[in-house]
Amino acid sequence: MASTALTFPNRAAHRAWLISQAQLPLGFRVGTSRFEFMPREAPKPAKMTLTLIALDQPTPDFAAMFTRNALPGAPIIVGRQRLNEATLGAVIVNNKVSNVCAPGGVEASEKICARLANLLKLKPGQILPSSTGVIGWGLPVEAIMEALPQTSATLTSESILPAAEGIVTTDLYPKIRRANVGSGSIVGIAKGAGMIEPNMATMLVYVLTDLKIPRAALRAALHRAVETSFNTISVDSDTSTSDTVALISSGRVPCPDLAAFEAALTQVCRDLAEDVVRNGEGVRHVIRVAVSTAATTELARAIGKAIVNAPLFKCAVAGNDPNVGRLVQAIGKYIGAYAPETDLARLRLRLGGIEIFSGGVFQLNPEKETALVAHLRGAELYASAPPKDGVFSAAIDYPPHERCVEIEVEIGNGKASAIVIGGDLTHEYVSENADYRS
Amino acid sequence: MASTALTFPNRAAHRAWLISQAQLPLGFRVGTSRFEFMPREAPKPAKMTLTLIALDQPTPDFAAMFTRNALPGAPIIVGRQRLNEATLGAVIVNNKVSNVCAPGGVEASEKICARLANLLKLKPGQILPSSTGVIGWGLPVEAIMEALPQTSATLTSESILPAAEGIVTTDLYPKIRRANVGSGSIVGIAKGAGMIEPNMATMLVYVLTDLKIPRAALRAALHRAVETSFNTISVDSDTSTSDTVALISSGRVPCPDLAAFEAALTQVCRDLAEDVVRNGEGVRHVIRVAVSTAATTELARAIGKAIVNAPLFKCAVAGNDPNVGRLVQAIGKYIGAYAPETDLARLRLRLGGIEIFSGGVFQLNPEKETALVAHLRGAELYASAPPKDGVFSAAIDYPPHERCVEIEVEIGNGKASAIVIGGDLTHEYVSENADYRS
Repeated sequence: MASTALTFPNRAAHRAWLISQAQLPLGFRVGTSRFEFMPREAPKPAKMTLTLIALDQPTPDFAAMFTRNALPGAPIIVGRQRLNEATLGAVIVNNKVSNVCAPGGVEASEKICARLANLLKLKPGQILPSSTGVIGWGLPVEAIMEALPQTSATLTSESILPAAEGIVTTDLYPKIRRANVGSGSIVGIAKGAGMIEPNMATMLVYVLTDLKIPRAALRAALHRAVETSFNTISVDSDTSTSDTVALISSGRVPCPDLAAFEAALTQVCRDLAEDVVRNGEGVRHVIRVAVSTAATTELARAIGKAIVNAPLFKCAVAGNDPNVGRLVQAIGKYIGAYAPETDLARLRLRLGGIEIFSGGVFQLNPEKETALVAHLRGAELYASAPPKDGVFSAAIDYPPHERCVEIEVEIGNGKASAIVIGGDLTHEYVSENADYRS
Repeated sequence: MASTALTFPNRAAHRAWLISQAQLPLGFRVGTSRFEFMPREAPKPAKMTLTLIALDQPTPDFAAMFTRNALPGAPIIVGRQRLNEATLGAVIVNNKVSNVCAPGGVEASEKICARLANLLKLKPGQILPSSTGVIGWGLPVEAIMEALPQTSATLTSESILPAAEGIVTTDLYPKIRRANVGSGSIVGIAKGAGMIEPNMATMLVYVLTDLKIPRAALRAALHRAVETSFNTISVDSDTSTSDTVALISSGRVPCPDLAAFEAALTQVCRDLAEDVVRNGEGVRHVIRVAVSTAATTELARAIGKAIVNAPLFKCAVAGNDPNVGRLVQAIGKYIGAYAPETDLARLRLRLGGIEIFSGGVFQLNPEKETALVAHLRGAELYASAPPKDGVFSAAIDYPPHERCVEIEVEIGNGKASAIVIGGDLTHEYVSENADYRS
């Protein structure tokens, strides 16, 4: 899915590459500040980073898509209203507390927007708020209000890197992707998938462009791009109450070609989506499933999702174990439950380019097994070894390559196809989500 | 769900209780044998147990339900044909090799049935074959044929315990449940949920009764009983290619009351279903979700399934962490994706009897947090401690109690309800499914 599968000799090389991608499009500035606060719901202090993305001029051309979770956070409720506003002037993001189903959550978000609007000479309705963190906790409104002046004092138009680092919490590394179109650019940042800090669950993505795209075209392009990028990934099948993807145009550069813009936007979204999986909780293998010759795109995507969400197969991949029976199980489970009319007589499966199933039966032998193990080992991002104390911790370095476990599924019944990206299921995932709190 | 939540002071007491449940209904005998064989697909020998359940006289009154997986095992294909036969005389079960999508799988099953029929003076169509084990491997037909005479030589009418132990592989303990109706009885056995031996994936359940129930009534009762027992559990959301539930009546005892029979059958199925979860891969907490006041039973069950299949919530339970934000996430995810018309304004949630959500917001405080942790700790089946070598292994003792993590979900929109049973997600699950093969 990534435009190029990068490999990096070391952490410094990966970071240098990120910095080379980080130049802000014209018309934007970003700033951050970090402070300590006392949560109402917990016995000890916590730290929060505020990230501000500001436009030099409010823009009518902005788009946003939010979680489909039926119990969304307060910033999602506010954000949906903002889509009806004439212009957008800034985005304010906090981590640590997600402001989901907390008493007075919407009022807290609006109060912060009002104070920031006052500082930036905007109206409250021109500010899009975002929050990520513990579900159920309330925002520390006073502490955030106090930190806003300092946050806006750090605004810079040089690099998006401070914002990419500000929205991450315990992500392993910041995520930045860019594409150039004519003399303009599209630059996106993402906060990683899920609960890298215990109790946290959010994907936040902000894509900025200086290319002038009218609001309606911008929103349509974002909907299509999200459909084949963020909507085709799954780290652990859980849907956050705070997921947000925002696309904002400063309109400073004429767009030479709307189709080229949409293609570049889609590539930035797909690259960021794959980054989100690669930095997913405990992920040590990215799994890319290409489903083809399916009756419908929906079916192709659902089969891909069934594979990357099957816990037993995910565990097998974690162990570099080509347990292809579990792959077949996942396909059969989905078809049996949701599309039983599908004829699987022409089903063909390849793993790492090696045929493992066709003609209704497995195509296995010891030589293939050896080659399949080698493919899985080659796609491993970090070697896993049981630690002495038994408590697994996530790797703390930038990933050395972008190779994936490659699965091809031919249904043989139609012309639709889809690509789905997921991760394995590891001890590090369980440790991050079970071992640290109680 | 269990008729009584049992507690056992030690392993011997649990085993003694199982033996007290194990008397076979009239008209049945069971036998087993164990042998070594050389798989075609693997470099070293493996062991297999054959389990034979034989009726003194072939019966027209039998029922069976099979996996909905669209790529089922050969025994499932054969078993579906057997439902059309006039009578059933025996069931032959092997473990270690599941005979799923292996070349010549149906022929292999039929060949074994033919040989066994010859031994037992039955017709091949009177034998129901079952297999559980590695998906993709072929049955060692010759080795099984050689072991059949010894297996039938061990037939006994005393106790179902040999069969309960014969169908398990690396389950922690055999599972037997019984109910008496008039002077007859219903006795069921089950093989545990999933991949306790790496690569294995099957739930097998056999329920025997001496009560005379006509075939049509027997099949209808089984369908209804399975709907509220085995169809309401999930250990890891994976659906085996071999799941089988068979119910066989020897017809030796008149049934005084069909409604009493169905109630007793349902209880046996529910007890076994809960046993299957309690012995699920790496399970250290059983989670029971009672959903009420839902618009439909299907919605109630789907919400329960969404909760017990949410990996982040399962990990939190494993860590005795009352991370109720993840519980709300799971409900909101399902409703948002599949039933967005549902009004959640009257949603109420309790964990361990303690209200945690109502009126659209969380109802939390430090005292409740302490009580919630105590509830989770009280429901833990085995204490988890990181081992020195970092490789987690499943507990190897009978479980000491049948307490569950109790979750109540009131939707507030209707009159339907459902109970769903699931387990937590632990290091032991990952170790069983990732650490041992490659």
